[in-house]
Amino acid sequence: MTPKQLQTFLYDQIPLARALGVSVVKADAISAVLKTPLEPNRNHLGTAFGGSLGAVLILSGYTWLYNALATRGHLCHVILQRHETDYLVPVDQTFETTARGPDEKEFERFLRTLERKGRARITLEAIVGSFDRPACEFTGDFVAEVTEQPGLR
Amino acid sequence: MTPKQLQTFLYDQIPLARALGVSVVKADAISAVLKTPLEPNRNHLGTAFGGSLGAVLILSGYTWLYNALATRGHLCHVILQRHETDYLVPVDQTFETTARGPDEKEFERFLRTLERKGRARITLEAIVGSFDRPACEFTGDFVAEVTEQPGLR
Repeated sequence: MTPKQLQTFLYDQIPLARALGVSVVKADAISAVLKTPLEPNRNHLGTAFGGSLGAVLILSGYTWLYNALATRGHLCHVILQRHETDYLVPVDQTFETTARGPDEKEFERFLRTLERKGRARITLEAIVGSFDRPACEFTGDFVAEVTEQPGLR
Repeated sequence: MTPKQLQTFLYDQIPLARALGVSVVKADAISAVLKTPLEPNRNHLGTAFGGSLGAVLILSGYTWLYNALATRGHLCHVILQRHETDYLVPVDQTFETTARGPDEKEFERFLRTLERKGRARITLEAIVGSFDRPACEFTGDFVAEVTEQPGLR
């Protein structure tokens, strides 16, 4: 799917994505990148609210996984089960969020389980900023369920 | 502080709190309770988006800690450092979020560190729903810093 199609899907699935001001920059087999302006997400100190950063990190995980599955012809619900997020450095401008998939072997295992059971779980990492010097670090467990009517939760 | 004052403070500090539709129901020495409508936070499946639940859980932690400190005359920044959140059951209606403080001994230790160093860290728990059957469970580390101009980050 193109970034534009994924962004339309996000806005349709989760109206808050529009309030957050998220746009999809890129999504491929390796990663998904979202860009978010500070303004709707700022706090009184002029930096980004932790809840906004957390929400956008989750959206980047959905985007990567939904796209990786759709590319292989799997229509799925993608459900967030749990996550840990570390806020390392205050964010004081437009920020990029990158989710990346697991290594290929693990993803193949996940796909085999999904094909066999119609449901599988996978752990994804995401960051705000760059992987070598992240402002926030996120690890989340997502569940995909095969369905005719895909959704995000 | 009254719930009304705390709500005004939240909206002033974090504009996204208004988009989330959060209202402060109660805040005392034991806990802080927020109420949030589903509509602005729903996904395509008619349940609450994980990022919204996460953001409101964070706001409930801020509210409890900011109020507990203000009540004792401490003006502080409250900074979220990290959190873990588990999404156990889909949320399909207006939801209540409750943050609760640590036991008294631990809170006294935290206050002594804050008074001595001007900065201290504390772990808070919060849930969506009720503590005996939560829909989401949150554990977060918050840092308070003494300042003339309090804020939330």
